[in-house]
Amino acid sequence: MHTMALTLESLNTLPLDAAARLLDGVYEHSPWVADAALAQRPFVSLAQLQFALAQAVTHAPLEARLALLRAHPELAGKAMEAGALTRESTHEQKTAGLTACTPQELAHIQALNTAYREKFGFPFIVAVRGPRGTGLFKPQIIATLERRLGGHPDFELQEALRNVHRIAEIRLTDKFALPPLRGQQVWDLQESLAAFSDPGFAERGELTVTYLTDAHRACAARIAQDMRDAGCDSVHTDAVGNVVGRYAGTRADAPALLTGSHYDTVRNGGKYDGRLGIYVPLACVQALAGAQQRLPFALEIVAFAEEEGQRYRATFLGSGALTGDFDPAWLEQPDADGVTMRDAMRHAGLDPAQIPSIKRDPARYLGFVEVHIEQGPELNARNLPLGIVTSINASVRYTGEVVGMASHAGTTSMTQRRDAAAAVAELMVFLEQRAGADGDSVGTVGLLHVPGGSINVVPGRCSFSLDLRAPTDAQRDALERDVLDQLQAICARRGVTHSLTQTVRASAAPSDPVWQTRWEAAVQALGLPVHRMPSGAGHDAMKLHTILPQAMLFVRGENAGISHNPLESTTCNDMQLAVEAFDHLLAQLGRAST
Amino acid sequence: MHTMALTLESLNTLPLDAAARLLDGVYEHSPWVADAALAQRPFVSLAQLQFALAQAVTHAPLEARLALLRAHPELAGKAMEAGALTRESTHEQKTAGLTACTPQELAHIQALNTAYREKFGFPFIVAVRGPRGTGLFKPQIIATLERRLGGHPDFELQEALRNVHRIAEIRLTDKFALPPLRGQQVWDLQESLAAFSDPGFAERGELTVTYLTDAHRACAARIAQDMRDAGCDSVHTDAVGNVVGRYAGTRADAPALLTGSHYDTVRNGGKYDGRLGIYVPLACVQALAGAQQRLPFALEIVAFAEEEGQRYRATFLGSGALTGDFDPAWLEQPDADGVTMRDAMRHAGLDPAQIPSIKRDPARYLGFVEVHIEQGPELNARNLPLGIVTSINASVRYTGEVVGMASHAGTTSMTQRRDAAAAVAELMVFLEQRAGADGDSVGTVGLLHVPGGSINVVPGRCSFSLDLRAPTDAQRDALERDVLDQLQAICARRGVTHSLTQTVRASAAPSDPVWQTRWEAAVQALGLPVHRMPSGAGHDAMKLHTILPQAMLFVRGENAGISHNPLESTTCNDMQLAVEAFDHLLAQLGRAST
Repeated sequence: MHTMALTLESLNTLPLDAAARLLDGVYEHSPWVADAALAQRPFVSLAQLQFALAQAVTHAPLEARLALLRAHPELAGKAMEAGALTRESTHEQKTAGLTACTPQELAHIQALNTAYREKFGFPFIVAVRGPRGTGLFKPQIIATLERRLGGHPDFELQEALRNVHRIAEIRLTDKFALPPLRGQQVWDLQESLAAFSDPGFAERGELTVTYLTDAHRACAARIAQDMRDAGCDSVHTDAVGNVVGRYAGTRADAPALLTGSHYDTVRNGGKYDGRLGIYVPLACVQALAGAQQRLPFALEIVAFAEEEGQRYRATFLGSGALTGDFDPAWLEQPDADGVTMRDAMRHAGLDPAQIPSIKRDPARYLGFVEVHIEQGPELNARNLPLGIVTSINASVRYTGEVVGMASHAGTTSMTQRRDAAAAVAELMVFLEQRAGADGDSVGTVGLLHVPGGSINVVPGRCSFSLDLRAPTDAQRDALERDVLDQLQAICARRGVTHSLTQTVRASAAPSDPVWQTRWEAAVQALGLPVHRMPSGAGHDAMKLHTILPQAMLFVRGENAGISHNPLESTTCNDMQLAVEAFDHLLAQLGRAST
Repeated sequence: MHTMALTLESLNTLPLDAAARLLDGVYEHSPWVADAALAQRPFVSLAQLQFALAQAVTHAPLEARLALLRAHPELAGKAMEAGALTRESTHEQKTAGLTACTPQELAHIQALNTAYREKFGFPFIVAVRGPRGTGLFKPQIIATLERRLGGHPDFELQEALRNVHRIAEIRLTDKFALPPLRGQQVWDLQESLAAFSDPGFAERGELTVTYLTDAHRACAARIAQDMRDAGCDSVHTDAVGNVVGRYAGTRADAPALLTGSHYDTVRNGGKYDGRLGIYVPLACVQALAGAQQRLPFALEIVAFAEEEGQRYRATFLGSGALTGDFDPAWLEQPDADGVTMRDAMRHAGLDPAQIPSIKRDPARYLGFVEVHIEQGPELNARNLPLGIVTSINASVRYTGEVVGMASHAGTTSMTQRRDAAAAVAELMVFLEQRAGADGDSVGTVGLLHVPGGSINVVPGRCSFSLDLRAPTDAQRDALERDVLDQLQAICARRGVTHSLTQTVRASAAPSDPVWQTRWEAAVQALGLPVHRMPSGAGHDAMKLHTILPQAMLFVRGENAGISHNPLESTTCNDMQLAVEAFDHLLAQLGRAST
């Protein structure tokens, strides 16, 4: 069967019930979702419609949301076997290969389905067409089912609804015949780049690209080629290994816009961390070059060689070289195999002596912008594809230990104890409340251990860590002061002692207000709400912040925003929106410059 | 110089200032202590005087207590070198060998002294004559100084004052020419018994006596000999390895008093845990036999072969055999070397088939009493040599895990977290408050760990343990219910899950009120306050509780009551008081029976 493509205009202008019929089947057996969303007409984009649909679900009573989930057929379930699925579901399950299971596979899936339904009270739902829209493989679907079966019911309810929204997004894309072609291309380029991985990881299908390995240099070569293919006028690899592509503007002397992100990865990392910020602007270059358009300023995209600090105990090698923060002492540092950074660079054909020369002159740039996958759950939880970064958070980290007195758990009365772990627990409760009361600050005790503890011994020692972050240095300092004061007070009151070692201290990099506003305008132009948020993770923009105004755009991560993990994911639809937002930013700048 | 021995009568009857002069030098340069204590005259015992002196210090202002500490000369310090010590201090330091240090030793001690004084604000004070009164060796003193230098200032202030009290106790004993001869004998017999230790421990000077090893059987033989030497009429080793000594009464048909404790130890344990409860009543037998006195009832002292569960995964083998709780299935259990309990018993010449025959008939016994070192800090903290056990606490133990979701510590806002460790911390704070609000209950999280945690990752898992104890089953159950309900509520609110495994559940063994009152009367007769307390640790009396009325007497442990540790200690003075209390209990029973 073939359906005539809809248009947003018809959806916006038809009477409500006729418009609602256009959305039939987008939310499985649940026309109330479309009815509620259409109250928000008109829509300027599919993304806006999509968000309105998701909001309709979010604001519906719990029973309605559960009914929506229960309206979905079981994956490879009886309904599929009996041919009783909706047209959309049949198509999707067939594409995923679920209609062609072996009896063993079918039995396994159905057993998992039963366990899932018993645990959560609704059938397992996954967007089988996946983040690329072309379909997950059967083993991926089974692995997802197995993984999600282990989740907490509250979380899984949300995750199931997010999959319903993703299914709807794909169905809408089909109905409106608006495939996210540029997002798909960005997706595919990153997929191709992920073919290169360091030895020991590549064999296991894991992605690891650390500074100046063979895989890393293969990535650089591929990125350079991708830049040339997109239409960059010049492409070169600089002294630190950054790949720099430049698309010239109409005026050679005008300050350029600097953008980019890193192409190295953590060990067993994700495909989008860093790389998305290279390929999104490159898609914009491709569109400009294809249309033979020039902006009044040059666009310089830098694929930074190193950000993650995996091979050497130094981070931001690539962006640091652009800001004059590359410390020559790092060159003598050996990696785990004893290869110094200097030797690794020579082996890669790089000349460390030239690093100072690549320091950028701020006068020759308008500013720095960076697109990055969020690496956190905020956008995912809010069904928002894009977020505006207000600041890269200031941070401070400590490792610490409380020392009390180990004693018999049975014979030491509560008043006689010097329980080191209880002291840390009290601090943890305070930290959680204090950070939670302070908008956008976070505080974490990630390491926690009673060394040599026994079930029947009051802890005499408790080791722990503190990771405190806040959007401004002042907020971070106040949080730190309160937490350390509280630790002091807790220890004094309990008659225990503590020690702390500071391991990290980094200043905040608040977004430049003018540049942040440009991202906001770009997101609004797509019909999407502006969601402002700090970046809890560090980014290359932190470095550029020291010499240029900067602002970042975040792209939603799937799977609760997990990152530094193979489950890191985002969809081609979200990538398309990031490209369109970047287009809009360029257009704003172009208007401002003319 | 020789001083005429004082008598309590002269102290009680002289005018206050004359009486105070009698106590000159007991508290170093601090006559105000004696003045304050003498307001409590008359004293029926040295122990009562000693407690009154300690109370005078306890109730003095902090400045007065610090002045008392600062009145003490530094150990092997300048005053000693200059010959400017009090007569008592000179004698004590000389006896400890401190007046004969090598220059290196002197330099080391003086460096430690300086560090100690800088940290705490007063000189290091230790009762150099030690728990036996005959003097510590120089290396012991140096080790004590090194250990106490690491303590918390609040604790060390109390520990220094306790040493001052111990010094005063020894000085009083000298002044009144009332050496605790019976306590010294009990101390010496335990010291002799500690010569036997299992292979692998003996070589390191550590005490370990596990069920039916060569060392264990050597202990049994020594105890049997000690029982015969003390005057027991019959001594035998029973089928489970208990050594049973019986001192006959005037009436062969009258029910006997059962007492005793265990002679096995934990690995690298203390010398008094269990054994004190064998040698204290044996001292009473010795006195009776020496005076050719018979009580109207027999006294049966059982040295239980096993209580600690170190070699086999079973505990209370000795006392359990007397109550019919010896499980024959245990016989097939192998130890770490694969030797079954049955084979170990055969090798030791024991006949497991006879174990059922040693079950005691309650009709033939008056009850069971047990003397035991406290194994906790309560008596030590209160300057009390003896305590009355109200109940052996009911207990329940769990190991548990909270599972949340690991996520980026920087990018996951406080509201989006499912922090497993924060959930456990919240439970710990609740547990501490709940147990603390419930008189004599205790609750401990002794194991605590974020497995695979990182400083920058919100904990996805947190493993922990729960150890809950209370004087009654009902209190334990209520505590358990509240804690588990709270865990449930915390996890539900935070969207995390938890699992719990119960590993121990033991009923309370409340003391029989009549027998407890007998111990109280005995302690009061010594002029000491009655301090009632639960036993947080399990004891053989728990087993006998199932067939006989029982009550326990606790003896103060030095070093904050540490136990299951080589630092476990009590003084010969306290042992003497325990013997006298046991005498008194026997006398009460004798009067009741005639």
